[in-house]
Amino acid sequence: MSADSSASARFADRRDLAAQDVLGLIRIALDAPDLGSGVTPTLHNLVSNTAAVGAAYFQVQPLTQRRGPQPLIYQVRAAFGEMPDTPGMQAIAAHGLPADTPLMRALASRHAPMFFDDVSHAPESAGFQELGVASLAAAAVTGSGGELLGAFLMHTFECHHWTDDEVRLFSGVVGTIAALTGRLAAEEQAQAAREAALRALGLALEVRDGETQGHTDRVTDMALRLAQHLGVGPAPLQALKWGAYLHDIGKLAIADRVLHKPGKLDAEEWGLMQSHVTFGQSFSSALGFLPPEALAVVSQHHERWNGQGYPARLRGEEIHPLARIFALCDVYDALISVRPYKQPWSHAEACAEIAAQSGEHFDPWVVEAFLTLMPPSQAHAGAVG
Amino acid sequence: MSADSSASARFADRRDLAAQDVLGLIRIALDAPDLGSGVTPTLHNLVSNTAAVGAAYFQVQPLTQRRGPQPLIYQVRAAFGEMPDTPGMQAIAAHGLPADTPLMRALASRHAPMFFDDVSHAPESAGFQELGVASLAAAAVTGSGGELLGAFLMHTFECHHWTDDEVRLFSGVVGTIAALTGRLAAEEQAQAAREAALRALGLALEVRDGETQGHTDRVTDMALRLAQHLGVGPAPLQALKWGAYLHDIGKLAIADRVLHKPGKLDAEEWGLMQSHVTFGQSFSSALGFLPPEALAVVSQHHERWNGQGYPARLRGEEIHPLARIFALCDVYDALISVRPYKQPWSHAEACAEIAAQSGEHFDPWVVEAFLTLMPPSQAHAGAVG
Repeated sequence: MSADSSASARFADRRDLAAQDVLGLIRIALDAPDLGSGVTPTLHNLVSNTAAVGAAYFQVQPLTQRRGPQPLIYQVRAAFGEMPDTPGMQAIAAHGLPADTPLMRALASRHAPMFFDDVSHAPESAGFQELGVASLAAAAVTGSGGELLGAFLMHTFECHHWTDDEVRLFSGVVGTIAALTGRLAAEEQAQAAREAALRALGLALEVRDGETQGHTDRVTDMALRLAQHLGVGPAPLQALKWGAYLHDIGKLAIADRVLHKPGKLDAEEWGLMQSHVTFGQSFSSALGFLPPEALAVVSQHHERWNGQGYPARLRGEEIHPLARIFALCDVYDALISVRPYKQPWSHAEACAEIAAQSGEHFDPWVVEAFLTLMPPSQAHAGAVG
Repeated sequence: MSADSSASARFADRRDLAAQDVLGLIRIALDAPDLGSGVTPTLHNLVSNTAAVGAAYFQVQPLTQRRGPQPLIYQVRAAFGEMPDTPGMQAIAAHGLPADTPLMRALASRHAPMFFDDVSHAPESAGFQELGVASLAAAAVTGSGGELLGAFLMHTFECHHWTDDEVRLFSGVVGTIAALTGRLAAEEQAQAAREAALRALGLALEVRDGETQGHTDRVTDMALRLAQHLGVGPAPLQALKWGAYLHDIGKLAIADRVLHKPGKLDAEEWGLMQSHVTFGQSFSSALGFLPPEALAVVSQHHERWNGQGYPARLRGEEIHPLARIFALCDVYDALISVRPYKQPWSHAEACAEIAAQSGEHFDPWVVEAFLTLMPPSQAHAGAVG
């Protein structure tokens, strides 16, 4: 009776200790800036408390890297301890594990953790012996639809019989962390999907207007570089990116006869063309989730430092700083691009025009930063279209 | 010495017990189908272990419900225990807490939990006495940018001095749960934003083509209703919704002279018009995150059951079931809408045409379901545009 209760107390202790540990690992994963660094302490915990010499977390490749009908790849997001020094393992470290490997297929269909004392004896762990792994434990990270978002793996170099304690530890620790990781990975995926949809909205216009092919991506990249150079922080940078994607979305509302007119626009046509800014603003507002800074980029990207822009004839610092940064990049990209009515300007010619417009079209502070970042004497790859 | 170690052991016990508790609450929140039901056990735990008679979780209103420049509202997502029976509290239960109330403003700027023994004595808890609350504890749920996504509140009806234990419990339990809730709420928000961006992609076309105003939303709603009636599950329903949003996105690439031609299209123009399907498919694929079922809706919505559709002349069950469902709704909406060349048909006339096309244009199984769901004899609100 006394022995019983002491054993049960010891068991409770171990269980409580594990709870404390897991809670600590959860807090780290929740507070980490990214999922990879967030789960590293979990991998450390596994290697410290089991016979495993190394552990890794694999996650399905980001949406932005997926290419058509090829099988999905699970990439290493975090690793701790020793990895086998084989060409196969180096390839996996560099390129990831394809979704059609037997282990990933097994994880996708079975949600309980799997333990292999000898990887050469089970069809699910086929291929791992060749990688230099002897024993393996694996747990799935799944999304709300049951899809396989990632996996936790730990391994030994010599054959090892996974003990009950190790099975309990791996199942317990990884069980909760995997559930959490699944949700955090879903958040990453949803954010990437929002990003892709916003970029697609911007690109939708280029479909109609062959001339501006690549303009959205080029001008977005340049505006982000210039803003970073000017010390803009992460949240406004994000807003700038969204605003840049959507800056010309209002041109979707402009008829072909105006948008594609080869000659000079008359007054009525010019008024219609200018309306793309106010239309773009109302369209972007209707999205419902863009921060005010992103909307400012859309609504103010044709304002000028000297008050001669449109639609509101804002002047100087009345114009949002992000819109001032973006306006310069937008004009630069137009200058170096070919148009039916003009040849592309050289980088040096475009810089000279931008310098001449300092204090007129553009904010002098932004002009100075631009000319420091991309000096006129330096060669730059011009725009293609 | 012995007293010391026993006190420390008791403290460790309590801490471990709390860790077990919090871990259990975390697992519930992670596994729950929605955040509201996921945090209810946490509220239960607070009311059971403190003097609080009631507790609630408020979350910022979904993106889809936000309207322009009005202040954000924090809506009740979960509540447990007793709430004051006052008109003010009933208004909050129904409409939420505006972001500009003193308490929400204080939570947005201070991230540590706040405790009010007497709400009438602190400016931050102004207004709560009128609601029938005497003592209050509040904790913020923040997003990665520090923005206030929600709040946990617990209250008493009589003035109560919050004890050290209660402060520790609320801070400890709510601390971790709030961090988790913040991430899960961010996932919800990111998903809503992706949804909004996809819908906006669909609506972008309507901007150019005044005729089809409202078509995207109407046809999406009807396709979802018909699919639900046919027993389609949640994941394919989601795919159908995305495909419906994007079905005509390829028309962005069609020139005005074809898209807006009032008369009959010649062979070359008709070829261009048909190309909107293949273009829409490549555009939708480029988004990178749409499931194959959504792409099937886009690429097959002009195929016909009898093999006379385009672009692939698929026949019968070669056409994806979601595309068969969608095609019928798309045609129905065109029939009941006004066009420059035709008056809107009545619901009964449209039903007669659809019935006549059973086994020709449409899958007989889908036609039957449609006529059951929307019988010809029943009046339906026609399309406006």
